[in-house]
Amino acid sequence: MQNVDYIIGGDYVLTMDENLTVIENGAVAIKGNKIIDVGVYSEIYKKYNPEKEIRREGSVILPGLINTHTHAAMVYFRGIADDLPLKIWLENHIWPAENKWLSPEFIYDAVELACLEMLKGGVTTYNDMYFFEDAAGETTKKVGMRAVLGTGILDFPTVSARTPDEYLENARSFVNNWKGDELITPCIAPHAIYSCSTETLEKSRAIAEKFNVPLHIHLSETQWEAGEVKIKHNKKPVEYLESLGFLDEKVLAAHCIWIDDDEIEILARRKVGVSHCMESNLKLASGFAPVVTMLMAGVKVTFGTDGAASNNDLNILSEMSTTAKVHKALSNNPTVLDAKKALLMGTRWGADVLGLGDKIGSLEKGKLADIVMLDLNKPHLTPVYDVYSHIVYAAMASDIETVMVNGKLVIDNRKLLTGDEAEILYKAVRWAEKIKRHLLKINL
Amino acid sequence: MQNVDYIIGGDYVLTMDENLTVIENGAVAIKGNKIIDVGVYSEIYKKYNPEKEIRREGSVILPGLINTHTHAAMVYFRGIADDLPLKIWLENHIWPAENKWLSPEFIYDAVELACLEMLKGGVTTYNDMYFFEDAAGETTKKVGMRAVLGTGILDFPTVSARTPDEYLENARSFVNNWKGDELITPCIAPHAIYSCSTETLEKSRAIAEKFNVPLHIHLSETQWEAGEVKIKHNKKPVEYLESLGFLDEKVLAAHCIWIDDDEIEILARRKVGVSHCMESNLKLASGFAPVVTMLMAGVKVTFGTDGAASNNDLNILSEMSTTAKVHKALSNNPTVLDAKKALLMGTRWGADVLGLGDKIGSLEKGKLADIVMLDLNKPHLTPVYDVYSHIVYAAMASDIETVMVNGKLVIDNRKLLTGDEAEILYKAVRWAEKIKRHLLKINL
Repeated sequence: MQNVDYIIGGDYVLTMDENLTVIENGAVAIKGNKIIDVGVYSEIYKKYNPEKEIRREGSVILPGLINTHTHAAMVYFRGIADDLPLKIWLENHIWPAENKWLSPEFIYDAVELACLEMLKGGVTTYNDMYFFEDAAGETTKKVGMRAVLGTGILDFPTVSARTPDEYLENARSFVNNWKGDELITPCIAPHAIYSCSTETLEKSRAIAEKFNVPLHIHLSETQWEAGEVKIKHNKKPVEYLESLGFLDEKVLAAHCIWIDDDEIEILARRKVGVSHCMESNLKLASGFAPVVTMLMAGVKVTFGTDGAASNNDLNILSEMSTTAKVHKALSNNPTVLDAKKALLMGTRWGADVLGLGDKIGSLEKGKLADIVMLDLNKPHLTPVYDVYSHIVYAAMASDIETVMVNGKLVIDNRKLLTGDEAEILYKAVRWAEKIKRHLLKINL
Repeated sequence: MQNVDYIIGGDYVLTMDENLTVIENGAVAIKGNKIIDVGVYSEIYKKYNPEKEIRREGSVILPGLINTHTHAAMVYFRGIADDLPLKIWLENHIWPAENKWLSPEFIYDAVELACLEMLKGGVTTYNDMYFFEDAAGETTKKVGMRAVLGTGILDFPTVSARTPDEYLENARSFVNNWKGDELITPCIAPHAIYSCSTETLEKSRAIAEKFNVPLHIHLSETQWEAGEVKIKHNKKPVEYLESLGFLDEKVLAAHCIWIDDDEIEILARRKVGVSHCMESNLKLASGFAPVVTMLMAGVKVTFGTDGAASNNDLNILSEMSTTAKVHKALSNNPTVLDAKKALLMGTRWGADVLGLGDKIGSLEKGKLADIVMLDLNKPHLTPVYDVYSHIVYAAMASDIETVMVNGKLVIDNRKLLTGDEAEILYKAVRWAEKIKRHLLKINL
């Protein structure tokens, strides 16, 4: 009998491994931050002597969900402006709010709320592009969540920097601060083609290469953007990045809505990962990304929530459900994007496109223990014929019962173990009071 | 001081009245099954002496949500077959399961689970078309939910009847059984144009007129159906019903996907109510209903979940969110179907199209007390800038805390007060075991 820290068992273990193995009455043995075995519960129990055991009737064990594109701190602007055209939403509401409020203190507090929301919805890793990311890293680490973080790089001044060189210098020092961290992977995050010059993109790429870290960029989110790039560079957005030698498997491109088949072929060939942000794209009427075509071309499409000011939550279960359904209707084919595929995109593929595929994304021996337990004992999940279908088409974030990140329990019985939930909500309310008072003043 | 049974108070009362009045720190006074006053909490409290008071910090009070099209008992087939073309799904999976299993006992048990799921998600009224609806009525009444129920009328035999005349006779006796009931409104439910002859439709219409009850029909759900009607009757589906004198404000038409502007004009002129079943339509790839065009033409579009075998839940909050977002993207306009409009469609308009607009659908003096309390003290609903936006774009069914139907508390603190939740789930599991054993046997 080998001593282990945890055995986590449930009615079903969805490993999300190469064969999408499902183990009925299965269990996962965890030691330190690693999964050391996965199998039938009775056998795991014979082999290992756990410090702690977590097993609940009617539960499903699955890998932590992965949110491949967000601006986590924007939870503090959730619902500040809705049902507006993108330009007005951004220029009249979001940018002024960001300029007024963003600071390391704001980010620290806001990201804690975002982590709480994501963890409670089964998300164990998120990929962020925003400002003052050192503060985001600190709070994410404190809560015990995994993240890939990148400070946005732009050509125009914001609260975070004034010049491209200052942004790039910030990015370099951010990578230095966090490289090698257990939970936080630093990345380089040039904002978008329309907001970064060719030089800025090339310098961003060079830093990413030097430090061997991922690149995260917005790509073809709006029709306007695709048109701008065409006018300025006489190329389609993906072709332009390809011409710079920007694209490879280290790149995560968010949105990819206004792209054509030639561009999809480039994304597939260069093994670029895509973050599809369905709910944000719908709500801002940005358009429909050609997800089914990308999947058929071999592009790894994954799920991003985008910021909570445009969605309005950080709910990957909901993104899976909406995406699987909308793309069936768009392709006039109910067999595409089935429940298994959707969950694969939300777990293992999410890890792959963030360069973490060897570490997380599935429940396999040797991988890090990022594990979620979902409770099926709910009216809307009863009875059970197909557990994949339940997770994708019927489960809610509130069905997530227990969450482990890196071998450490962070949520149990839907309660945060690594922070004070009431205090996190209270801080948000206090920030929002200041923000609302200011909005009232400027609108007078 | 007048004695009342309840005062229900919250941070916000969304009355959903003509002016969409929102009362901050508001309250509703209830006596018997009626709302006798709505106003600012401190004033309501001065005027009335409640038997019981329900007030929680950080809550929103709103009218019960209304599900205008479902087949409630299909919850027992939730997840039995997914990601399949409609024809295969229906003919190879759903119809055989229905033929094998449907009985008054099945319906009684399954509808109890459906009611539980709907109530826990804030739905206080549902509009059902299925079989053995006497059993549905009994269980719905037992749980204390409101419903409009109609036994499906078809030209071909099912477990419920053999001939059109038998179906019509059943429908007549069903109406006789339930007419005048406090919670259950019987209706006449000819299944669809393609499954009912002209004679069956005309006789259905005649019974509805005689008893002055609503009509509920599937209309233009698939492109195939619209084509069939054209071939058989040389008319578009809505034109055909119009030619029969079938259409008026007593008719609730579910789906209405494959209809054109001329047909929309008829629906508007005849004041036909529409149940839009976005998530079912997406998942079965049935198409996109022209919701924005219908709204612009003045058609009252409301939300239906359809059966849980095609969706896979009975979640109106989710339908509101998905519908509001998808139709922005389809119209390339993020200002359409804003949060207020979506909630109006899910409450007052839902009541209107079921002929219950004078009784329920808003929180106003004299209306029946169908009231929902939603808890905002959640990470994904923090902070609060706009309560409509939170309900439509961020809230989950699990945020519903307390539900009153007809002046009686049915859910409090997310617990069912009118039945044993564990027993309801257990019954579902036992039925599903039988169904699974049979599926295994026939698939061998």
